[in-house]
Amino acid sequence: MESVQKKRMLRIKSPEDMARFVKEQKKAGRTVGFVPTMGFLHEGHLSLFQKAVETSDCVIASVFVNPTQFGEREDYINYPQDTERDARLAEEAGVDALFLPDESAVYPNGTAVTVKVNEKTDVLCGRSRPGHFDGVATVLTKLFTIVQPDHVYFGMKDAQQVAVVSSLIQAFHFPVKMIPCPIVREPDGLARSSRNVRLNADERKEAAELRKGLEQGMKTLKQGERDFEKIADAVRSYYRGHLKLGKIDYVDVLNYPDLKRNGTVLSGRFIIACAVRYGRARLIDNITGSTAALFSEKEGEV
Amino acid sequence: MESVQKKRMLRIKSPEDMARFVKEQKKAGRTVGFVPTMGFLHEGHLSLFQKAVETSDCVIASVFVNPTQFGEREDYINYPQDTERDARLAEEAGVDALFLPDESAVYPNGTAVTVKVNEKTDVLCGRSRPGHFDGVATVLTKLFTIVQPDHVYFGMKDAQQVAVVSSLIQAFHFPVKMIPCPIVREPDGLARSSRNVRLNADERKEAAELRKGLEQGMKTLKQGERDFEKIADAVRSYYRGHLKLGKIDYVDVLNYPDLKRNGTVLSGRFIIACAVRYGRARLIDNITGSTAALFSEKEGEV
Repeated sequence: MESVQKKRMLRIKSPEDMARFVKEQKKAGRTVGFVPTMGFLHEGHLSLFQKAVETSDCVIASVFVNPTQFGEREDYINYPQDTERDARLAEEAGVDALFLPDESAVYPNGTAVTVKVNEKTDVLCGRSRPGHFDGVATVLTKLFTIVQPDHVYFGMKDAQQVAVVSSLIQAFHFPVKMIPCPIVREPDGLARSSRNVRLNADERKEAAELRKGLEQGMKTLKQGERDFEKIADAVRSYYRGHLKLGKIDYVDVLNYPDLKRNGTVLSGRFIIACAVRYGRARLIDNITGSTAALFSEKEGEV
Repeated sequence: MESVQKKRMLRIKSPEDMARFVKEQKKAGRTVGFVPTMGFLHEGHLSLFQKAVETSDCVIASVFVNPTQFGEREDYINYPQDTERDARLAEEAGVDALFLPDESAVYPNGTAVTVKVNEKTDVLCGRSRPGHFDGVATVLTKLFTIVQPDHVYFGMKDAQQVAVVSSLIQAFHFPVKMIPCPIVREPDGLARSSRNVRLNADERKEAAELRKGLEQGMKTLKQGERDFEKIADAVRSYYRGHLKLGKIDYVDVLNYPDLKRNGTVLSGRFIIACAVRYGRARLIDNITGSTAALFSEKEGEV
């Protein structure tokens, strides 16, 4: 940003106004960084804003709870929202413009035309949430066309989302660079999520075990195990011993970002991922890395 | 174009080179007009080029036979091609750059991510060719993202395509204006089509009846008939009397461009459309208009 005095963050409602704002930025030669969110911002989002501020001239964030990516109506209706808090946090983090469109503005002709993701979706969250990534890809296609970003920032907590959005960018030739950012965690290791507020005290305490289970998988891997299922079994076994309230949705070990089992032996980049349900909250977590660099592994490597 | 001496047309193979070319044009303040085609150009295409030259500063055309919009493998494999002739005609018509991408360049990750058209496709050609408009919308999403046109030009022969592409533009917020252009016909009334070359002499002669049948529908409409089915019956009855070789795929009368039957009475803008098969050639034709302006009707009004 040119001025020492930080400019106030713009709030933009309509796609037309956003397109105009972006056009001005590009005309002035500024690179545009974009962080799409569903709001109820937490430290994870703020780390994306920070990365965007560091690497783009103009930072645009969106808060839009996208109806088409929810399978369960209840989860959509109850998705936590606090726009005023979101706007304050975004402004403090250095966001230049916050896009707050209505559903009818984003979906002017409803679901007349949508995006379908045909690969990478039959595993992990894609299997548990049919249609979820179609909804994600649909709304991002719209947002990318409106915002025309040079860089987009996504958190690795949704590692499958990062993989799918990379496919989307490649398939539709969006002139945008995907910048995945590491998972941000609570002090006890729980991955930050807007859905964590739905946990009661006992669930919240137990949820710290999710990360520990994944670390058991990593330990097995570091000890030389390369069979996908045996690594996943180590995680499952840990959860059987430590989760009393949570119900496992999946534990899976796959090559990353293609999300396939290339034969039975894990090699190259990989992901150890889980989803666990606590009442109305479904939590996800993962560790990614590469077998080549196993002993210098750092979490969230992408 | 600034210079009196007409510049040579560029031929561009890669999406990256095309994106670069477009960026230069935009930087120079030129509006970009885009005419996507499947090649084997005829007078219909040339009329689109002409309209584009009249209304855009820089005219880009593409020749790409899109595999995902063909249901029948045979039709795709046998789709007529003559790139050198296409290039010559495009250059003569004033096209500035011809985009000739390979399949692997357009579909770098195959069909990992595609577009789905959920409205306007259960009638007319959409019903006869399931998946056809998904393929059209998929390739156009890619091409629109690469070419970033200000205007796109489509022929009204594919009236359903014009309706679907308008939905696509609205749904994905492409900052582009759709410019539909009138059907161009042979002297005997047959709509120009790349597939006309597949007709033998007898079929070619009979094919002129397609238009005449649609005119019977118009006549019925002008006489005061407003029932969709009765107007369609007039067309079908004409075809029964005049088509000996062609096999009717559909005859339909609908509101346009929503392609619905709003009740049983035709009102507002409408389309009378047909598809007829001659061996390997499936020909389509239509008349659009508005009931309000019935007596000043001109064909191809859009």
